Amino acid sequence: MRTEGEIPGKPGTLFLIPTPLGATPLDWVLPEATRRIAQRLDCYIVEHAKTARAFLKLVDCNTPLQQIEMHELSEHTPAVRLKDLLAPLLAGKDVGLISEAGCPAIADPGADLARLAHRHGIPVKPLVGPSSILLALMGSGLVGQRFAFHGYLPSKAEERTLAIKELEKRAQKDDAAQAFIETPYRNRAMLDSLMQACRTDTWLTVACDLTLTSEFLRTRRIEEWQRQAKPDLDRRPSVFVLWREKG
Amino acid sequence: MRTEGEIPGKPGTLFLIPTPLGATPLDWVLPEATRRIAQRLDCYIVEHAKTARAFLKLVDCNTPLQQIEMHELSEHTPAVRLKDLLAPLLAGKDVGLISEAGCPAIADPGADLARLAHRHGIPVKPLVGPSSILLALMGSGLVGQRFAFHGYLPSKAEERTLAIKELEKRAQKDDAAQAFIETPYRNRAMLDSLMQACRTDTWLTVACDLTLTSEFLRTRRIEEWQRQAKPDLDRRPSVFVLWREKG
Repeated sequence: MRTEGEIPGKPGTLFLIPTPLGATPLDWVLPEATRRIAQRLDCYIVEHAKTARAFLKLVDCNTPLQQIEMHELSEHTPAVRLKDLLAPLLAGKDVGLISEAGCPAIADPGADLARLAHRHGIPVKPLVGPSSILLALMGSGLVGQRFAFHGYLPSKAEERTLAIKELEKRAQKDDAAQAFIETPYRNRAMLDSLMQACRTDTWLTVACDLTLTSEFLRTRRIEEWQRQAKPDLDRRPSVFVLWREKG
Repeated sequence: MRTEGEIPGKPGTLFLIPTPLGATPLDWVLPEATRRIAQRLDCYIVEHAKTARAFLKLVDCNTPLQQIEMHELSEHTPAVRLKDLLAPLLAGKDVGLISEAGCPAIADPGADLARLAHRHGIPVKPLVGPSSILLALMGSGLVGQRFAFHGYLPSKAEERTLAIKELEKRAQKDDAAQAFIETPYRNRAMLDSLMQACRTDTWLTVACDLTLTSEFLRTRRIEEWQRQAKPDLDRRPSVFVLWREKG
């Protein structure tokens, strides 16, 4: 493997380019600088070519869309392929990394690529844009000191209940808000599990459709969630946050 | 306490408005929509009035700066004062919350205010902007699945070493990148502690001056950090990220 000292020419920069979380105008969620950089690049590593092309169309790239070099990097990409994806960077070309929605290299296959880029002395430059995880944590009002993000919890009801109880304990013990997500069609089942598994005075944030006009973001204690009409979360991307005051 | 059902009029919205991490032009780090909302508001809750005014000057508010209502909310603000800060919101006025730098209500006193706002049925709207924590996690290439943010570690050398070893274990056990910060003048001591306390094949990201022209962001294994010239981190805001592959 080539290491930092051995690179013959100056490598390109791997730009981590966030994309909108839904159908919002770009200027709602991306700084002009992020857009300008995306506009200028003509080589991309993307999670799904179709959604990437829709984004680059909005960006209004300097290079015609059909001439933009695009490589897919998904959960199905074998690890040995990662090195090949770095070839344009090692040859001195700037490359954009974009994920399906939101910030790349956060719990997606882009993280492995960014790590490998570091190993090869390639500069990695994260750009500002929307992250449903960060927005949910901000809006929750539950991040006094610390937080953690767990991705998906187990999908089977019993294991999910155990995982929720474990996070609830950890929230209190570490004084740390615990965030996680669910596949949109199981959101309702997740909300039911949370109301059954958690103690009544535990805080729960439900944040969905963040940055969209249909945004819903509410923090309540479990007992209040139980009393109120449940929001319709079906098929809406959601982030959940749990926290308990230190006992 | 007034609860959701009892609110007589429509309350205002509490906008969580991120601010730049240093002396960068606004369009590098804020979407135009975030700026437009900040421009329109004439009532703010801020961590420090002086830095808030400098930011609002850049924003070019519709209301003359000296006519903008500004209330301070710092770590020294007593909890009983929080309710008073909500008064304009309960009276129907939109209010902006801004912290010293970056995203408000993440490990700062704004979180308690946002939580109280939820209790009073006040809509809380997080806006997109720069977060050194999120940018460091993206750029680290270490967030395969999960992550945690711990704020400051203990400042005494022995306790800090224990905390680092604990995070290193947790990173591997939970398969979760562990992020934390240090007060800028102790960054060098932190980096030394990390190199002494961690196993040689543990991954460490050092991210400093994020979004500034002096940005430094590098992920290496501890043994590589030990071999390379140490970056000068003195007085530069830094985020550290630790991770180990699951054994």
